[in-house]
Formats: sequence, structure tokens, C-alpha cells
Amino acid sequence: MAHILILGGDGYLGWPTAMYFSSRGYAVTAVDNYFRRRACEELDTGMLYPVPDLSERAELWYRESGYEIKVVVADLADPGNMRKLFTGGVDYDWALDRNFSGAPNTVVHYAEQPSAPYSQIDHLRADFTLVNNLRVTNNLVWAVRDYARECHIIKLGTMGEYGTPNIDIEEGWIEIEHKGRKDRFLFPRQASSLYHTTKIMDTDLLWYGVRLWDLRVTDLMQGPVYGIETGESGADERLKTLFNYDEIFGTVINRFVTQAVVGYPLTVYGAGGQTRGFLNIRDTLQCVHRSEQSPAKAGELRIFNQIMETFSVRELAELTRRIGAERGHAVEIESLENPRKEAEVHYYNPTYQGLQDLGVEPHFLTDEVMSGLFEVVERYRDNVRREVIFKGVRWG
Amino acid sequence: MAHILILGGDGYLGWPTAMYFSSRGYAVTAVDNYFRRRACEELDTGMLYPVPDLSERAELWYRESGYEIKVVVADLADPGNMRKLFTGGVDYDWALDRNFSGAPNTVVHYAEQPSAPYSQIDHLRADFTLVNNLRVTNNLVWAVRDYARECHIIKLGTMGEYGTPNIDIEEGWIEIEHKGRKDRFLFPRQASSLYHTTKIMDTDLLWYGVRLWDLRVTDLMQGPVYGIETGESGADERLKTLFNYDEIFGTVINRFVTQAVVGYPLTVYGAGGQTRGFLNIRDTLQCVHRSEQSPAKAGELRIFNQIMETFSVRELAELTRRIGAERGHAVEIESLENPRKEAEVHYYNPTYQGLQDLGVEPHFLTDEVMSGLFEVVERYRDNVRREVIFKGVRWG
Repeated sequence: MAHILILGGDGYLGWPTAMYFSSRGYAVTAVDNYFRRRACEELDTGMLYPVPDLSERAELWYRESGYEIKVVVADLADPGNMRKLFTGGVDYDWALDRNFSGAPNTVVHYAEQPSAPYSQIDHLRADFTLVNNLRVTNNLVWAVRDYARECHIIKLGTMGEYGTPNIDIEEGWIEIEHKGRKDRFLFPRQASSLYHTTKIMDTDLLWYGVRLWDLRVTDLMQGPVYGIETGESGADERLKTLFNYDEIFGTVINRFVTQAVVGYPLTVYGAGGQTRGFLNIRDTLQCVHRSEQSPAKAGELRIFNQIMETFSVRELAELTRRIGAERGHAVEIESLENPRKEAEVHYYNPTYQGLQDLGVEPHFLTDEVMSGLFEVVERYRDNVRREVIFKGVRWG
Repeated sequence: MAHILILGGDGYLGWPTAMYFSSRGYAVTAVDNYFRRRACEELDTGMLYPVPDLSERAELWYRESGYEIKVVVADLADPGNMRKLFTGGVDYDWALDRNFSGAPNTVVHYAEQPSAPYSQIDHLRADFTLVNNLRVTNNLVWAVRDYARECHIIKLGTMGEYGTPNIDIEEGWIEIEHKGRKDRFLFPRQASSLYHTTKIMDTDLLWYGVRLWDLRVTDLMQGPVYGIETGESGADERLKTLFNYDEIFGTVINRFVTQAVVGYPLTVYGAGGQTRGFLNIRDTLQCVHRSEQSPAKAGELRIFNQIMETFSVRELAELTRRIGAERGHAVEIESLENPRKEAEVHYYNPTYQGLQDLGVEPHFLTDEVMSGLFEVVERYRDNVRREVIFKGVRWG
């Protein structure tokens, strides 16, 4: 039975990923340090509903499914904690069988501070983001180097690493011809937040590890994710993944739907021409699964652009307004002075074929899907606190 | 009077830089946490002669020159320590006038773990290198952002960031034409050690800071430096900069000369075709000075390739043997299995014109210069401990 280690297993993507693999018969270990929960409390951000902790969820999941997800609560920025996941000595917070599951065959690495606005709040949050994200990645690289070179690392990157270049965005690599000679390089990266910059730096680290020690790495350059429900979340209300609707941890589509439901004008930054690639949370799970089934080769840094379609912010606002209107919400759109430093109108033509070539079948943001998202948020509308949606974190 | 802050002021380059600017009438503050000294003790590496600590050197320098170099002993990976250098509250370890000198006009940032082999010893040294180098750079970026946006950052990068690509190496930037569209990007970087990778990541961080907050940054992509004496080091023997001759902290030319003097065969890794750009320590000082005199513009990340000529390792070994022979040393050359993972024969054609356009006048590695280096090492030959020269740090 293949063993999958999920770093950041308590997060928006981590918990659904844990259930997804568990329900398919994999041995799953989920690790988290609850950073996101603490940050949400500290910053008083918006969570649509309370979410039980990892051990409670693992217990619930076991009762519903009969499958075990082992839980470790630990800070992976500490090299010793990371190494125990490969060598033993792990202290499980929840497990049926407390014996060590052994080194993993695959690691899914989500264990990072995931918010661009968080990283821009002040120098201490910038420092935390930098140290946390890079130490975890580096500790993982060295643990795999030292104990499990065959292990496949599936790392969550972000499309934000590329920024908005004036040339077509390829899947991670580009051949450059210069003064009559050629070579192949990582596609140029330049991001617009400290968070996104740490993801570029992660890629630098992984590419170094791949070249030096023939590691196997798949880097998933993901766009903003939307959605709540996944195939495994329906059995019990308390198995649903966490859902933020605030500007700091809430992704744009999830936030817009929440704003629409509670009559809070949609906040479009500047011209609203910012175009990005998006995907449904169900597709994140498919993409990770397909990557796991066809691992990168030894010495390969395989990069996929993990998006299914592109929208501008203005298009998303219009879609939210239209579906909102159908469901009886009078949705206003408000243009705000852009608190970020980014191009508001730009060329954007990313390639994203690799994952579909591996067999991923995209869910698109249809009216029906959008309506389904509204339906869940409407159910919890009384929990929404309007005053925490927008705090005005500025990039300046 | 312009105020220059030198981060890493106790190092091989830091102390000569402090004296250089001080002797030219600048207000100088030198900061260090003595990491290098501690690491040399811990790893029992080779220092050609003892070097007084920063406060003792500042006192000596004052007695010889009449100029003050203020000394701060502090760990700049701590954000608070960095910020005090811009806002006040600094506790000087040595100063004539203990009042705060004010925020600097220019920061010369050398405060990094500088050794590739050190970063490859084990996961704990890798972790230290990563955390130290990136936190210091990030803390500097945020301190300048918050308190001194006009301040010019002169940052030491390394030619090693580029690796050995199959195309000509430009000075930091490249225009890429792709599918009929064009844009300008950082020149591709891929390094062969964790240390060099942290320097790539530094560049990512600085480029982010420049774009977001219009910082002024000059990145000096330096090759391996050789030499001991500078214009200011002659007044007192104890003002000479530290000199390592071991494989961990000793750069190749300095190490080869030492090996030649004590009859230790020159250790050439593999084919010896590894080609790099080199410069004399006197030219480092010129380059930093010229950069300071013509600062980068607001919003500019200006990158110079800081080398004066290129040599292969085999050529350096031959030169060392020839000059050694003239001085009565029978120098053997030994080819070792390469402990590093690097191309031993490769294309290498870097551009390095920008600093000379600013007025830098290169010192080349002439027979006379090489002989001068031999002369100093011969004076201290009784201090050389053969057994610590080569410890066999392996990249594998």
C-alpha cells in the first residue's frame, strides 16, 4: 500500500487531499502545525463555519469511512521534526496503529504560509513567511536526500511565480536562443508579493536538489482555487474543508460569492483587468492524484501549470453578479484603488496542457457550479461577519 | 559626510572595505556576528594568522589613521537588530562617539555564510546557510522600505548564480524573444551548491523589493577573490584581513598558493576544466567604491559581473606551479575525483564590462601579483597546518 505524506494536512487543500487518497486505499499521514488557524484567530479573519481539529476530523473520517488518516501536529520548519517523518520516532496525535508507517512513497507539500496579503502586512509577517516556507522546503529536500531518494515530491507552486510577462507562459521551462547558442532554462519568474517570491525561491531550491541528487519532483503551478465540496466531504458536515471569505486568506471567487450573499459590494481592485488562471478544488485533487500515479523521473523537475481556465477579475465580478441576481441577491460592484502593486491590464497567455495529457478532466466554472457555491455559502450566511471581509492590507 | 553601513564587517572583504571607505573620509559602521570565526573554530579550519576582533581592529585603525569605524556585534538575522541600524538604539561595541550615526546612505551587504562546501556538509549547515542568508537580506529590504527608501543597497552576489550555461552570460539581464513577443528578464540562474542557491534567492528577493518599493540596488556578481594586502592594510600587521587556506573557507587561488608553499600537492577536481572569473581583493574595493559613487536609480536593480579575467582550475594550478618553482617550491598537481557535482568541461563566456565603464581599473593576476601572494604566505608558512587543508566535503 503506497504511503502518502501530506504536509499542511489541516489546510484548505490539505484535508481534502488526505481524505481523497485515504478513500482510495492509500496509507495517509497528515502533518500540520495549525499556523493557519492561529493566524485566522490573531488577525480575526472570516471563517464561514468552525472546523474540528485534525485529530477530531481523522476520528470522524475513520467512523464514516473505516479508513485511517494518521495525524502529526508538528512544526516542519524544525529539521528534526521533518526527519522523523522519514526515520521514525514520530509522535502521532491520532492513529489507529501508532507504529511508524515508514518513509513515504510520495510527499505532497502544501506546508507553507499561503497568503500574499499576509506576507505584505509588515516585516514580521514577511520574515515568518520567508523562514517558514523555505525551511520546510529545504528540510524536505534534505530528508529525501538523506533517507528516501526514490520518494516523489509533489510540491504546490503558484502561477503567481511567473507574474504577467509579455510573452506566452510555458509549463515551467523555456528554450532560449541567444547569440547563436541555445540552452533550456526555468521559465523566467518575477512575482508581486513576498509570498509569491518565496514560491519562486522554493523552485530554485527544488531545482538545485533535483540536479545535485537526482530527486524526483513535480511542481504544480496552481492558480487560485475555488469551491468547498469534494467527493469525500459529504458524509459529515464537519468533514468540509475550511473556508475563508476575507481578503487575507479567502481566494477571490470564494470571497466574491460570500460578499454577494451578504450584500457587500464586490471589491474590484483598480481596472479589474488582472487576468489569472483558476481551478475547482476537485481538480486540485485530480491533478495531485494523476501526478502521483505517473511520478517524475529521477533527476526530473516536472512542472505543470495547474489551471483549467482564465478569467479577469472584472469577468468574475460580472459572473458573481449574474448568478447572484438569479438567486435573489442584488450584487453591486465597486472599483477600489488597487492596494497591490500589479499590472491591471496586461498580456496573459499561459499554456496548461500537461495535466490534461495525464488524464485530468477539468471542471469548469459553469453557472451550475457557481450556483452550487452560492448554495453552500447561503446556508452559513448568518456566520458571515461583514466587518472582517476587507481590512485594506496595502502593498506600499 | 556620507555614512556607509557594512554588514559582515569582520569578513575577508568586510574589514578591508571598512578601512577603504574610512580612509576616504566616510562615516563607517561595521556590523558582524562573528559567525565566520566561530565556524572556523568549530570545523578546525586553516587561518594563516590570528586576526584581532573588530573592536580591537577599529581601535588599531583609529590609532594608525585617526579615523573612526564604529563597530556593532549583532546577529542581523534578527529583524530587530537590523532595524536599529536605521532607527537608532544601537549598542556600539566600539566607537569614539557613541551617539547614533543615523540611517546609512549606502549599505554594503556581505553578511552571509559565504562558503559552498560549508553549506553542503549536512542538513544543519544547509539550514543555517538558508536561514541566515535570506533573513539578513529580507530584513535589510524591509528596513530600507520602512525607514530609508533612498538608501543604496550594494549587495554581493556571485557569478556562481549563473552556473555554466551553454549561452553567453550577460550582466544580469537578458531580452527573450519567444513566439513573436519580447520581454526583459533576469538572466537565468542555476547554481551548484546550497550556498550559491541562496544567492539566487537573494536576487529574487531584491528584485521583488525593487519592483514593489522602488528600492535602489546594485548586485555585484563576484567571482572568487584572491589576495591579502589592500591599500589600507600595510600600516599594522594586525590590520590584514583574515586569510583561510582550507577547502571550506579558502578560495582556490589563496589555497593553491598555500598548498604550494607547504609542499601539499595542488588538488584539482576531476578534469580541471572548470572555468570561472576571478578578481583581486583590491578590485573588490574599487568595484564597491565606484558603485557607491554612481548609485543605482530608484526602482533599478543594477547588476554587474564583478570579475576581471577568467581561468580554468587547471590553468591556475599550472600558474601556481610555475611561480612556485621560481620561488624554489617543488609543486605537484594531483587530480582528485571531483567531490562536487559540476561540469568539468563546459562553455563559459561571461560579459564583464559594466564596472570598467564606471572607472574600475583591473589588477590582473600577473606573475608579479602571484609572487607577492607567495611572499606573504611564505612569511607565515610555519602557521600552516597541512592536515586541515582538505577534509573531503562531498556534494553527494
